[in-house]
Amino acid sequence: MSSRVLIVGSVALDDVKTPRGHHHRVLGGSASYGSIAAGLFSPVDIVGVVGDDFPSEHIAQLEACGVNTRGIEIVRGGKTFHWGGEYSGEMNEAITHFTELGVFEHFNPTIPDAYRENDFVFLANIHPALQLRVLEQVKKPKLSVCDSMNLWISTERDTLIQVLKRVDVALLNDQEAMMLFETHSLPTAARQLLDLGLRHAIIKKGSHGAQMFSNGGTFAVPAVPLDTVQDPTGAGDTFAGGLIGYLASRKTLDEMSFRQAIMVGSACASFVVEDFSIRETARMSKEKIRGRYEKLQAALHVDPVELG
Amino acid sequence: MSSRVLIVGSVALDDVKTPRGHHHRVLGGSASYGSIAAGLFSPVDIVGVVGDDFPSEHIAQLEACGVNTRGIEIVRGGKTFHWGGEYSGEMNEAITHFTELGVFEHFNPTIPDAYRENDFVFLANIHPALQLRVLEQVKKPKLSVCDSMNLWISTERDTLIQVLKRVDVALLNDQEAMMLFETHSLPTAARQLLDLGLRHAIIKKGSHGAQMFSNGGTFAVPAVPLDTVQDPTGAGDTFAGGLIGYLASRKTLDEMSFRQAIMVGSACASFVVEDFSIRETARMSKEKIRGRYEKLQAALHVDPVELG
Repeated sequence: MSSRVLIVGSVALDDVKTPRGHHHRVLGGSASYGSIAAGLFSPVDIVGVVGDDFPSEHIAQLEACGVNTRGIEIVRGGKTFHWGGEYSGEMNEAITHFTELGVFEHFNPTIPDAYRENDFVFLANIHPALQLRVLEQVKKPKLSVCDSMNLWISTERDTLIQVLKRVDVALLNDQEAMMLFETHSLPTAARQLLDLGLRHAIIKKGSHGAQMFSNGGTFAVPAVPLDTVQDPTGAGDTFAGGLIGYLASRKTLDEMSFRQAIMVGSACASFVVEDFSIRETARMSKEKIRGRYEKLQAALHVDPVELG
Repeated sequence: MSSRVLIVGSVALDDVKTPRGHHHRVLGGSASYGSIAAGLFSPVDIVGVVGDDFPSEHIAQLEACGVNTRGIEIVRGGKTFHWGGEYSGEMNEAITHFTELGVFEHFNPTIPDAYRENDFVFLANIHPALQLRVLEQVKKPKLSVCDSMNLWISTERDTLIQVLKRVDVALLNDQEAMMLFETHSLPTAARQLLDLGLRHAIIKKGSHGAQMFSNGGTFAVPAVPLDTVQDPTGAGDTFAGGLIGYLASRKTLDEMSFRQAIMVGSACASFVVEDFSIRETARMSKEKIRGRYEKLQAALHVDPVELG
């Protein structure tokens, strides 16, 4: 029996251009990506805000993926958060063309009573003050996971540190983790994260995969080798969603469950980048995840050393 | 019984500055780093050239590490290849301050008869035309490994491709591999390397570790997490040396031996960066390698996925 997952973050419309294509007003946002991946493994309650320009088929799409959307507030006369950006070259980083915050500018998440006892909480990337407000509204979950971004590290570092002190897992990319502690060493940054009281520091490394640090050691997975990446948007949020959704389906949260969850998150992320928006993750199945998981597991297998 | 390894490349004096210190005229060069790591596992014959300014203690140091130095030509009145450079920040790339090629400018490797039947050959980074000349002088080895650099990819691509078609293993860093085939996808670059007839494409990713591609699949290891890197010079050559030295100590060259060899190479590389020049690798022991290997192996362990 899976536990329910609460996911709070952005629900957006994206204009995305990559060397593989150009798509307008497709479903985007950290909470959308995270929820669709998590929904494959556990029931998800999403909390976000959109304007009344938000297409109803996107709501239907989320619902079809096991996501309860009653927590998405629809503001009459408001505009949905609209982001436009472009990727080129190795597509490791987006160039933002425009950011129209719309109703997201005044997003102040109110967690419906029915979701306050969810055992699993994913704070997708939003202002850390809002992340704190979510934590104040929920009962102590079994597991809370927090994402963030370089903007909040530069402008709201103290608030972000307060959030990190209250959650179990930090999810950051390598540059963000090093920036947070002004170091050029990823292991040093990870150590400092753990010193805040976090149980796990999970570092996303884009095309280099992901690495988890905990007091029990480190675990690293490469990205699933893909010949063609269509659109990297949402890879990190999809990774996070797969991770927390898988953990919420487990009886125990031991170290091995986290390792498995990182593999599952990586498998989910490998699907999302194979098409624009959530097209490919909406088509994911547990069997497809198992296939990629086994491929990744084979890529990690090595026998003990034999030294004469 | 280990086979003998032939290593051909540069033997140099380095001036290296990093945030951790500044050292002058320390032992450097691709062949030196490679030989010292390989020498821990198998007997090594090095071929290179130096001037008569080359300190005899460096020769003694190489010999003490199991390296036969009779193939190092000492040019009377000549100057040893002298490189000066600096690392800052994440120390992923050196800024070169000066390159005085000295006698290395006219290096034309002549392989002593006694080394021509060595079963293992490492062509460290030198002009690909010289690498070809080495291949013409040796009997078909059991295993040949070739390194290169961005300079030769830009200026001598055709010659480099000829070399790659004749060796068993290509060792390149990720940017070099993608540059060679004008792609932004590492898996695509790896596929193209294998299409040249290579048995393995081994990609060095600096602080992200290493990844091997072969027709049997892929294998990835992270870098050993280190809090303090003193000097990254020679990490790639030390990785290569550990890899080929380990393989030369094995009875068979199956896929698992290569995976183990990548782990051993990574362990060796993790030592070399902990001090300047070859100080730390000269102190390596098989027991120390085993310790790091086991640490890395633990970082790769994961159980099968459990999907409800």
